[in-house]
Amino acid sequence: MFEQLGLIGCGLMGGSFALAAKRAGLVRRVVGYSKSPSTTERARQLGVIDVEAPSALQAVSGSDLVLLAVPVAATETTFKSIRHLLTPEMLVVDVGSTKRDVVDAARRALKGAVGNFVPCHPITGREVSGVENADAELYKGKPVILTPIERTLTKKIDQAEAMWQALGCRVSRMSPESHDAAFAAISHLPHLIAFALMNSIAGQPRGNEFLSLAGPGFRDFSRIAASDPHMWRDVLIANREELAEQMRHFQHALAQFEQLIAAGQTDALEQLITQASHARATWRLTPGAQ
Amino acid sequence: MFEQLGLIGCGLMGGSFALAAKRAGLVRRVVGYSKSPSTTERARQLGVIDVEAPSALQAVSGSDLVLLAVPVAATETTFKSIRHLLTPEMLVVDVGSTKRDVVDAARRALKGAVGNFVPCHPITGREVSGVENADAELYKGKPVILTPIERTLTKKIDQAEAMWQALGCRVSRMSPESHDAAFAAISHLPHLIAFALMNSIAGQPRGNEFLSLAGPGFRDFSRIAASDPHMWRDVLIANREELAEQMRHFQHALAQFEQLIAAGQTDALEQLITQASHARATWRLTPGAQ
Repeated sequence: MFEQLGLIGCGLMGGSFALAAKRAGLVRRVVGYSKSPSTTERARQLGVIDVEAPSALQAVSGSDLVLLAVPVAATETTFKSIRHLLTPEMLVVDVGSTKRDVVDAARRALKGAVGNFVPCHPITGREVSGVENADAELYKGKPVILTPIERTLTKKIDQAEAMWQALGCRVSRMSPESHDAAFAAISHLPHLIAFALMNSIAGQPRGNEFLSLAGPGFRDFSRIAASDPHMWRDVLIANREELAEQMRHFQHALAQFEQLIAAGQTDALEQLITQASHARATWRLTPGAQ
Repeated sequence: MFEQLGLIGCGLMGGSFALAAKRAGLVRRVVGYSKSPSTTERARQLGVIDVEAPSALQAVSGSDLVLLAVPVAATETTFKSIRHLLTPEMLVVDVGSTKRDVVDAARRALKGAVGNFVPCHPITGREVSGVENADAELYKGKPVILTPIERTLTKKIDQAEAMWQALGCRVSRMSPESHDAAFAAISHLPHLIAFALMNSIAGQPRGNEFLSLAGPGFRDFSRIAASDPHMWRDVLIANREELAEQMRHFQHALAQFEQLIAAGQTDALEQLITQASHARATWRLTPGAQ
């Protein structure tokens, strides 16, 4: 389907995409670039990319598919460094976890060429990062959300949709704004809470003793706290407005609990927990998003 | 080892204990009582107990091992209703998730007989409750914390330890106060947060749409929100002082994150996430507490 993938960012997400795309026969050749030359070299040694590019621009040169798999804060700089070589024939996509900032960066950096760029968020990942953990199965069966804007070319959207489907993904579309509000609630705030709780416990004099007693409930609750700091730094800042809005909702819900606990209002407290327990017990993971 | 187990509370924890104790040859006969007669009947039909007792007192009569498996707030009333038939030969244990309130209730209700009672917290459970989910494997390999007080008889502590070991548990001891501080941090606060987050999202106009997009990170983070409302109502109230103390630590850690996010202080934010990520990545579940 594509002759050459220009991969910018050879980490877990980018590397896994390259492996999956090659395996699916979606691309013939992968030219990869990472900010750190040793990562690019390692990606080639591991067979994740075929050719090392010394710059993002050179990864784009001659490619008909370009994937940005960089921390979201690097989106604008990356676009600026490659825009001179972007052609109308190219499909440009990203895999960022936030979309409003990515779309804004694309508008500013790509200007007239923004219609070739289809903003994408594949709902997948792992708590480990780096090209060493690249996995051809990372995208298989996973949901991918496209967040096109008015200027995104319909043809490119269709091409992006077909591309993800070729990797076994289930594709849906929403606005960048809706996307960011939803992910602030279901992903970014939970990560922030998990980070804060780990620091809260580990920072106490008896923190290590406490942690040594923690069981499977804690294990699952805190799993996302082990996520990649650099990526999450960018996500939390990029989506800070929606995150702050979700934080207000959360603090309000928490305060309700605290008041009832302090007042020993057993019945009202049980009712509040029942709401939560029911909501969680009836929730089902989107098929494929395992 | 014991002739008769007097089981007070035939739910998930009590029912599973009865099944495990019978299977391990620890008890010959189980006489069970639940507040709801239909639960007691169901427990007998399912073979979890051998004999239905019409009252807690009658479950105790003739038993040499008594297990309280009731919500922690019911501890004092339960002790009061059985104390007349407690004898020095009996070993009395519980399985409550909080220990300071249980020990206080035992002191008040049992008075001179308090030395026969060994407060126990097996670190196990499931997100489903009820005798229908009783599982002979629930305790196997799990940690059990004993929180004896000065008046607890050494002989009874040793007996309780041997009993749990016979079920394949790994037994340790700590003070009720240390226990409650630790579990406020690693269990009670995470549950409270998970409850509040579910209510926060589900209560928003677009909450269901948001939840439909949630992935595996959210699944694991929110799993404990499905826990039993009645049990958790009691735990949160029983341990409210330590919980409030942990909440202060958590809110402080959260505020640190919020400040750095609002100020866009990327480096300091990444450092804070790295602390959390490192603490979680190096944490290991206590062997057996799977």
